[in-house]
Amino acid sequence: MGSAWHLLVGPPLRWRDVTTERITPVEGLPALSLDALTSVAYGPEAIIVVLALAGATALHLVLPITIAIVLLLAILVFSYRQVIDAYPNGGGAYAVSRANLGHGASLVAAAALVVDYTLTVAVSIAAGVAALTSAFPVLTPDTVVICLVILAFVTVLNLRGLGDAARAFLLPTMVFIVGLLIIIAIGFIHPLALHAPQPGVSLVPRVPLETVSVLLILKAFSAGCSALTGVEAIANGVPQFKEPRVKRAKRTELLLGTILLGLAVLADRWHVGPRSGQTVLSQIMAMAIGRNWAYYLMSLTITLVLALAANTSFGGLPVLASLLAKDHYLPHLFALRDDRQVFAPGIWTLAILSAVLLIAVRGNVLTLIPLFAIGVFTGFTLSQSGLVVHWWRTRPPRWRFRAALNGLGAATTGVATVVFILTKFTEGAWVVVIAVPGFIFLFTRIHRYYRRVGVELGLGEIPGKPEVKPTVVIVPVVAVSRLARYAIGHALSISPHVVAVTVVEDADGSAERARHVQQQWAQWDPGVPLKVLHTEYASVAEPIVTFIDEFREQHDKEIVVLIPVALPDRLWEQVLHNHIDFVLTNALRTRPDVISARITMPLDGDDHHPDGDRPGTG
Amino acid sequence: MGSAWHLLVGPPLRWRDVTTERITPVEGLPALSLDALTSVAYGPEAIIVVLALAGATALHLVLPITIAIVLLLAILVFSYRQVIDAYPNGGGAYAVSRANLGHGASLVAAAALVVDYTLTVAVSIAAGVAALTSAFPVLTPDTVVICLVILAFVTVLNLRGLGDAARAFLLPTMVFIVGLLIIIAIGFIHPLALHAPQPGVSLVPRVPLETVSVLLILKAFSAGCSALTGVEAIANGVPQFKEPRVKRAKRTELLLGTILLGLAVLADRWHVGPRSGQTVLSQIMAMAIGRNWAYYLMSLTITLVLALAANTSFGGLPVLASLLAKDHYLPHLFALRDDRQVFAPGIWTLAILSAVLLIAVRGNVLTLIPLFAIGVFTGFTLSQSGLVVHWWRTRPPRWRFRAALNGLGAATTGVATVVFILTKFTEGAWVVVIAVPGFIFLFTRIHRYYRRVGVELGLGEIPGKPEVKPTVVIVPVVAVSRLARYAIGHALSISPHVVAVTVVEDADGSAERARHVQQQWAQWDPGVPLKVLHTEYASVAEPIVTFIDEFREQHDKEIVVLIPVALPDRLWEQVLHNHIDFVLTNALRTRPDVISARITMPLDGDDHHPDGDRPGTG
Repeated sequence: MGSAWHLLVGPPLRWRDVTTERITPVEGLPALSLDALTSVAYGPEAIIVVLALAGATALHLVLPITIAIVLLLAILVFSYRQVIDAYPNGGGAYAVSRANLGHGASLVAAAALVVDYTLTVAVSIAAGVAALTSAFPVLTPDTVVICLVILAFVTVLNLRGLGDAARAFLLPTMVFIVGLLIIIAIGFIHPLALHAPQPGVSLVPRVPLETVSVLLILKAFSAGCSALTGVEAIANGVPQFKEPRVKRAKRTELLLGTILLGLAVLADRWHVGPRSGQTVLSQIMAMAIGRNWAYYLMSLTITLVLALAANTSFGGLPVLASLLAKDHYLPHLFALRDDRQVFAPGIWTLAILSAVLLIAVRGNVLTLIPLFAIGVFTGFTLSQSGLVVHWWRTRPPRWRFRAALNGLGAATTGVATVVFILTKFTEGAWVVVIAVPGFIFLFTRIHRYYRRVGVELGLGEIPGKPEVKPTVVIVPVVAVSRLARYAIGHALSISPHVVAVTVVEDADGSAERARHVQQQWAQWDPGVPLKVLHTEYASVAEPIVTFIDEFREQHDKEIVVLIPVALPDRLWEQVLHNHIDFVLTNALRTRPDVISARITMPLDGDDHHPDGDRPGTG
Repeated sequence: MGSAWHLLVGPPLRWRDVTTERITPVEGLPALSLDALTSVAYGPEAIIVVLALAGATALHLVLPITIAIVLLLAILVFSYRQVIDAYPNGGGAYAVSRANLGHGASLVAAAALVVDYTLTVAVSIAAGVAALTSAFPVLTPDTVVICLVILAFVTVLNLRGLGDAARAFLLPTMVFIVGLLIIIAIGFIHPLALHAPQPGVSLVPRVPLETVSVLLILKAFSAGCSALTGVEAIANGVPQFKEPRVKRAKRTELLLGTILLGLAVLADRWHVGPRSGQTVLSQIMAMAIGRNWAYYLMSLTITLVLALAANTSFGGLPVLASLLAKDHYLPHLFALRDDRQVFAPGIWTLAILSAVLLIAVRGNVLTLIPLFAIGVFTGFTLSQSGLVVHWWRTRPPRWRFRAALNGLGAATTGVATVVFILTKFTEGAWVVVIAVPGFIFLFTRIHRYYRRVGVELGLGEIPGKPEVKPTVVIVPVVAVSRLARYAIGHALSISPHVVAVTVVEDADGSAERARHVQQQWAQWDPGVPLKVLHTEYASVAEPIVTFIDEFREQHDKEIVVLIPVALPDRLWEQVLHNHIDFVLTNALRTRPDVISARITMPLDGDDHHPDGDRPGTG
C-alpha cells in the first residue's frame, strides 16, 4: 500500500529539494491572479440570473451594475495593495485582523477564509465543468462525476507538491485572456451577433416575477460581486511571492475590469439571458465567433484555467491552516509537512470539504455563489477595517487618505455582506452563517485544550528528576511454540522476573486444555512460571488486563506487558492472524504506569529455515 | 464508542448464560423449516415469469411443472433425512462431502453453501419487501432502502445473540401457513375470483416471444426449483436441533407440497400472469379474498416471515464458517466467539455480502433466483453423491434402495444445475460460476498458509531454551517536559542504560532549535544522554528508525524503544495530538528483535494537579 501511495504522490522529498523547487516558479509566474480573473466565467451570469427575474427589459441593468462593480474592484485592489505592503509575510485577512482587531476578529477572518478557500475550489471547478457541458451538452448528466475527477486530479497534484508548479503554468492563462479579449473585440466590431441557433431553452420568464426595485438591484450587485472573490487570494498567498503580488494586483485589476465591462456591453447589446445548459459566457462566445473550433478551444481552455484557479486555493488553505495550527487553533498535525514537504492534512481537508459541497449542489455554480460571496466579503470587511486601525495606529505619511480609502472599502463590502446574508439566507447562505461561527467555536475549543495540556506537561519548566522501580515482565502466550520461546527470551533480557500468562475459556473441555498447556510448559521448562487464567467470557484480553490490574495492586513494580506477534511477510496474510496484540494494546492504552510492548517474530515464507536470519535467538 | 456499541448489541455474556439460553428455543421451535416454506412466495412466480415469455396460453403449464417439482421435493426431503441420520452433528453438504468425496468436493460444497446462505438472505429479504410493496405500492421507490433496513435489523439481532430466539418466534409462521391454506381453500370453494381491479400492468407479451419448447419447460422447471432451496438448510443447521429436524423435514414436505400445488391450481384457473409491481402471490391473495384488512395482514405477515427466513441463514453461515476456520480454511478469527458468544465475523460477512447483492440487483427477487438455484443445486448434487458413496461404503440394511434414491436425487439435481448454468449464464449465473471457484481458491490459499505457519512456529514441538542479552532503552522525546520525565523514569526502571533521542528538521532555524533543546536538557540533567538527530526529510519516525538500525548493528543489545504518549481523557481530544507513537510503532512492527513499547501518561482535565493520582512518579 505504502509503495502504491508513493507511486501516486512520488518519493519523499528533502527540505533542500523543495526550497530550490520553490524558487523556480516565481520567475515564470503569470503575474496575474487566476482566481480573480476566472470569475468572469460566472460573475456576469450571476447578475443576469437575478435581473431576469424582473423580465427581459431589466436585463439592461447589467451594464450599470457592472460599472459599479468595477469601481468597487478598483477600491479593493488598491486597499489590498496596502495589505501586502503592511503585511509582507502573507496571511491576508487573518494576519491583518490578528494584528489590529485582536484574536476574536482574526478568528472570524480565519473562519471566513476557510469557507472562502473551500468555495473557491467548488465554484471554480463547477464553473469549469459548466463551460465544458455548455460546449458538449452530452456530458451534462455526468456533471458531478466530472467535477470530482477534476478535484481528485488537483488534489493529487498538490499532494505531490506540484501545486506551485501548476500555478506557474502560463500558456492556458494566456490563451484564456487573449481569447476573451479577441472575442470582445469581435463583438464590438461586428455588433450584429452571429445568430447561430443556441442549444437549451431560455429561462427568462415571459411575465416578470419581480419588479425592478432597489432590493433587486442590490441583489444583482451583490451577486455580481462574486466576480471579485479572487482579489482576496492575492493577499493570502505564499510569502515567497511578495514582489510580483503588487504587479499582479495592478494587472489583474486592469484586465478584470476590461473583460467584465466588455462582456457586460455585449450581453446588454445581444439581450443575453439565462439559458438551460448554457452559460452566459458560452452564449456570448458562440454569438461572437460561432460554434466552431475556436469556440471549442476556448471552452476547453476555460475549463482548464478554472481548474488552475481551484488549484490556487490549494496554495492558500494549507498555509493558513498551518499558521492556525502554530497558533494552537487547529490540531498541530496541520503544521507538519509530510514526506513531500506539503501540508497534507490541509490539502485533504480542502479536498473533502469541496467534494461535499460539489455533491450537495450537484455541481451547480449559481447555488454556490451566495455562500461564496458571504465568506469572501466578511474577509474583505474585516481586513479593510483592520487596515483602518493599522493606519490610525502607525500614522505613516498620507495615513488619513489611506484610512479613508480602506474605510470606504470596509463600508461598501460590509453593506454587501449584510445584503447577501439577508437576501440569500434561505438559498444557502445559512450554511455560511452556521459554518463561520462553527469554525470559530472549533478554533477556540482547540486553543483552550492546548493551553491546558501545555500547563499539564509543564512545557517551558524544568521538571524533577525521574524515579525508578524494579521491573516485572508479563508475557501473554497461546501455546508452547517457537514464538513463545522468542518472547520469553526477550522478556528475560529486560528483567529476570518474568511471568507468562495464558487464557483458557470456560467451555466444554476447558479443564483438559488447561492441563495440556501446563503439562507442555513443564516439559519445556523455560525457567519462567506459567499462570493459567480462566474466563467465562469470550474475550481473551479482558482476563489478562484484570490479572495485570490485580498484580499492580499487590506489587509496587514497573510492569512491562510484552506481547509476541508473528508477522507474515505478505500483507494479505496478516488478516489470517488474530490480532490479539491490537486488542490488548488498546485495552492497556488508557492504563498509566503499564508499559505495553510488542515484539515481532517474522515469518519469512517456506524456503527459509525459520530461525535462519534472526541473530540471537537460534 | 465502545459503550454505544454495547447499547446496541448488549453487554458481554458468559459462556454459561448462553448455554442455558440456547436450550430454551428448542422447545418452542416451530418444527418447520422456514426458508423452505417461505419459498412459496417466489417459486410459483419464477415459473410463471418464464412461461409468460411464450404467451398467455403457455401459462397452463404451471400446474404440470409444479407437480414435477413437488415430486423432486419428495425425493430431496427423503434423502436429506438420510443426511441427518448419517451426520447428526450438522454441517450438511460440507460434512457429507468431506467424509465421502474428499477435501476437494467438501470445499466445493462449502463454497456453494456460502453462496447459498448469502442468496437465501438476499432473496428472502427482497421477496419480503416485494410482498410489502405489492400491498403498499407507494413504497416501491424505496425498495432497496427497506431491504437494507430489514437486513440491518436481522444483523443486529444476531450480533446480540438473539437469532436463535427469533427463529423460535412461532406466531407469524402459524399465521402465514394457516392464512395461505385458508386462501387456497377459499380459492377452491369460490372458483370465480373476486375480480377486484389489480394495480400494475400485465407483463405477459401480446405476441409470444418464444415457442413452448423442451428447453423452455426445463427453464421453467429449474426456475421453479427455487422453491426447494430451503430444504438444504434443514440439514445444515445447528447440531442441538437434531431431533425436531426429522419431524421438521416431514411436516415441511407435506405443507410445502400442498401450498405449492394449491397456488399452481389457482394461478392456472385464474390465468395469473406476471404484473408490474405485483407479486404472483399478492395477485392470488387479492383475487381470493379481495384487497381488504385480511390481505394487508397477510402481506405484512409474509414480509415478517421472510425476514425470519433470512434470519435462519444467520444461524447457518457463521457455524459453517467456524467449522471451516477450525479446519484452517478460513481466518481463525471466524472460529472465535465474541463478547456476546456469537461468531461475529461470520455474521458481518453474511450481512455485507447480502447487502452488496441487494444493492446490485436493486432488491429484485427474480434477478437473484438464477444465482440462488445454482449454488443450492450444486450443494444438493454433492451431498446426494456423497450419500451414494456413504451407503456403498457402510452397506447398512436396504443400502441398495437408499443409494438408488440418493442417486436419483443426485442425477435430477445435477441436470437442473447444468440447465441453470447454461440458460442463465448471462443473466447473472456467471457470478456464481466465478464465486464458487473463487471461494475454493481462497480456502486453499488460507489452508496452505496456516500449514506453513504451523511448521514455522514449531507447534506441537518442544522448543529450545530462551536466550538473554543486556538491554538498552531508547526514548524518543519532543521537549523537556513532565512527559519526558515520566518516560525517562519508566525507561530507567527497565535498564540503567537509557538513550533519549529527539529529531530536528533541517530547515530555517534548525541549528538554533537544536541548541535550545540541548541546553534545556543539560539544565534538567536527568542522568541520561540526549542524542539530537538531524533530518532533511519531514518524517520524524524515519531518522529514529535509522538511528535504531545503526545502533543495532554496532551493539549486540536487547533494544527497547519506549514511546511516551500523553492521553487526553476525551476521545475528540485525541485528534489534537500528533500520533507519532502510531507511526513509529508501525515502522518498528516489521523489525525483529526490537521491542516497541508505549507508556501512557494520562491528562485528566484542568481541575486535577497533574501528578495527583499517578503513584510512583510524583
